[in-house]
Amino acid sequence: MNWPHKDLLDVSQLSREDVEVVMRTAASFREINARPVKKVPTLKGKSVVLFFAEPSTRTKTSFDIAGKRLSADTFSLAKTGSSLQKGETLKDTALTLEAMNPDAIVIRHASSGAADFVARRVGCAVINAGDGWHAHPTQALLDLFTLREVWGDELVGKTVVILGDIAHSRVARSNCRLLPMLGARVRLCAPRTLLPKAATALGVEVFNDIDAALDGADAVMCLRLQLERQEAGLLPDLREYARRFCLTTKRLSRAAPGVKVMHPGPINRGVEIASDLADAGNSLILDQVSSGVAVRMAILYLHITRKEKGETS
Amino acid sequence: MNWPHKDLLDVSQLSREDVEVVMRTAASFREINARPVKKVPTLKGKSVVLFFAEPSTRTKTSFDIAGKRLSADTFSLAKTGSSLQKGETLKDTALTLEAMNPDAIVIRHASSGAADFVARRVGCAVINAGDGWHAHPTQALLDLFTLREVWGDELVGKTVVILGDIAHSRVARSNCRLLPMLGARVRLCAPRTLLPKAATALGVEVFNDIDAALDGADAVMCLRLQLERQEAGLLPDLREYARRFCLTTKRLSRAAPGVKVMHPGPINRGVEIASDLADAGNSLILDQVSSGVAVRMAILYLHITRKEKGETS
Amino acid sequence: MNWPHKDLLDVSQLSREDVEVVMRTAASFREINARPVKKVPTLKGKSVVLFFAEPSTRTKTSFDIAGKRLSADTFSLAKTGSSLQKGETLKDTALTLEAMNPDAIVIRHASSGAADFVARRVGCAVINAGDGWHAHPTQALLDLFTLREVWGDELVGKTVVILGDIAHSRVARSNCRLLPMLGARVRLCAPRTLLPKAATALGVEVFNDIDAALDGADAVMCLRLQLERQEAGLLPDLREYARRFCLTTKRLSRAAPGVKVMHPGPINRGVEIASDLADAGNSLILDQVSSGVAVRMAILYLHITRKEKGETS
Repeated sequence: MNWPHKDLLDVSQLSREDVEVVMRTAASFREINARPVKKVPTLKGKSVVLFFAEPSTRTKTSFDIAGKRLSADTFSLAKTGSSLQKGETLKDTALTLEAMNPDAIVIRHASSGAADFVARRVGCAVINAGDGWHAHPTQALLDLFTLREVWGDELVGKTVVILGDIAHSRVARSNCRLLPMLGARVRLCAPRTLLPKAATALGVEVFNDIDAALDGADAVMCLRLQLERQEAGLLPDLREYARRFCLTTKRLSRAAPGVKVMHPGPINRGVEIASDLADAGNSLILDQVSSGVAVRMAILYLHITRKEKGETS
Repeated sequence: MNWPHKDLLDVSQLSREDVEVVMRTAASFREINARPVKKVPTLKGKSVVLFFAEPSTRTKTSFDIAGKRLSADTFSLAKTGSSLQKGETLKDTALTLEAMNPDAIVIRHASSGAADFVARRVGCAVINAGDGWHAHPTQALLDLFTLREVWGDELVGKTVVILGDIAHSRVARSNCRLLPMLGARVRLCAPRTLLPKAATALGVEVFNDIDAALDGADAVMCLRLQLERQEAGLLPDLREYARRFCLTTKRLSRAAPGVKVMHPGPINRGVEIASDLADAGNSLILDQVSSGVAVRMAILYLHITRKEKGETS
Repeated sequence: MNWPHKDLLDVSQLSREDVEVVMRTAASFREINARPVKKVPTLKGKSVVLFFAEPSTRTKTSFDIAGKRLSADTFSLAKTGSSLQKGETLKDTALTLEAMNPDAIVIRHASSGAADFVARRVGCAVINAGDGWHAHPTQALLDLFTLREVWGDELVGKTVVILGDIAHSRVARSNCRLLPMLGARVRLCAPRTLLPKAATALGVEVFNDIDAALDGADAVMCLRLQLERQEAGLLPDLREYARRFCLTTKRLSRAAPGVKVMHPGPINRGVEIASDLADAGNSLILDQVSSGVAVRMAILYLHITRKEKGETS
């Protein structure tokens, strides 16, 4: 099968079959990360630009590791020290990068639509690593990969609660699109001020009460409280937020037996999730990180090699 | 031929024959950047330090890509996070870097003469990636490479206008030295306050009126208005500057048919150049970026392999 | 011999035999750095994370070069642009990094004990590249390697003076542990305010008078005056400090013939050491830098390959 997408902008562009291809490819790469020699020559001579206009540790490092373990060369561009500081437009930065013949540009940007904007202007693959509140497709794919590792391929009948600052979360949006495609039921839970205006339009259930949301849940995805991004006045003080919405062992007792706990990180312990829960046996938080490398290897591989395979067919 | 220069400090050190060697070498590397596998083992096991004490996207990334596509290892040093922050002298930074046995140090620095200062103190190759207002030799070489791709090897009879903030431009100075060597006529055009005091001593024509400067021109190189570097009072407000000196389609109609438009980037659209002109068919701006990778591959190759070839001869 | 240590937290964990293994291994790698092709495939497919939560040029670049010359992939994490900025705990950063399957984490951190804290939580090797005032083991090992290159393996009967801001120096602490193990006598010299409270408990001689300290010394290690770390009031003004404690040629005349001068860098010329002395023939300052790459290659090699060798035995 030849991968049909030049870019990965969000999961909404993926068919059910595409998702299966990503999952299978990631599974095949996952094993490489456990080897003594964690490197294959698959993308040797390919250039991957990591253009992160917002701060990031885990996503950028995850893509960097993914690229290098496939033998690609990676090139990091941060906002600090970049032409963006000098006032260059995103359009010109994108065209300049493309003129250096990269095979993929991985972009994180504070503006929703930034990845799409770049993708429409350059010929190489563009991978959205988070654009504003809009989408974070590799996060949703790695969340799915992680859940399937414990649940098997089938998500029908499973209930996943997404808990926290839904309004400002690209992670929530991408998961709301992907999980139902696989048959899972999604519940959103947040204080009213942190819910998007058209939350019900996402086709998912919406709760303001955490206990009701958790009732019988098979997995809970806590979201990071994006303190740096919130306008003033959207939430009461942190202590009040934690009192009402922090995931605790006691609250989790309403969920289904064997309920799984997830978080895209970085965690604010004691705010979104009780510290002991983050480290408990049913936490998948670190599995998500491991899955991330494998899923990003798959995404880079599929997007970078598609043309060549197309050419030879 | 064995490359005769330890360092590349400016184009003024190059003979006409040297320039031809750079152009031929760059042409041979250019093709690599269009391959599916953009990597050759030429500089495997070589270490290239990218020491950028001023912010840079395109030049640093260009050198980074150039080095890695030749299989060199690259090491980035920024001012942030470096010993310079701790008050170390440039001399000590240079000697420290040399003690780690790099094969080349690529340096950008706010002080004119910084590359020369370092070159006289270290044994490895030093490549000037821009020092103050003094020189930016790889930019001039890539500009030449770009022009020759459209004009052929011969520049005799061609007129090139350099337009904008000449006084603070290392790009202008290096081009004023290189282009006449190849037979081109150079015209400088700027408001009086943005012309160097001894502009006529550069052996080129000087204009304050853009229409006169553009008359019959074969190429126009716009310069970035270095807002961050200008002392107060050297130019009227930006709108006034743009009104008098922004390159527009209308103004360009005085130039020769098929006139080419260039800019070293990053562009301030609507200040130095009208936005539509930057994207027009006769714009070479993105070709300059592509040429940059090839020219920097050539420069790294010539400077890093010269000793070995000398040793074996 | 199989290397017995998962982590390198300080030299105090090393037996005399361990130190000899590091020295021998570093000597074998040293030669690689002088080759035309400075690269061996020893650590191909290994991932080394360089996690520097404090600014650093030389140590970070030294580890980066060491890793890449052994063909490892390196991944840089700075405090700027990292999740630490977002308030993530050190524990979560460490666990996240580990979940990406690195083979070693090299860590510099402002807090004493940070490397140990991380080492107890992750399965991969943790190399302390400086933690607060506590320890800087690779610096002490490279200092030893440098001294043995001029003195031979035997340090018995040699007197080494450590001069300057002892109180805030992890370099001094690690050297106070390592040098006596090899038979050297150590003297500390500093103004009273810059001596640790329990200096004599380190088992070394303590001086407040530089002339007495230098009397008959075989080597002098100047320390960087950590201006950025000192609480107010611990030292008189810089000029007064330099007048009393700056190492000068005249003062050094009291030392043994052939006395060697060292400094871990970056140097404040004219404060800790007279500028001419830093560049004099008996200065080992740049040899320390060169030794650093070889010693760090040895440390990465020993820590990363130990498991595999253990598994096959």
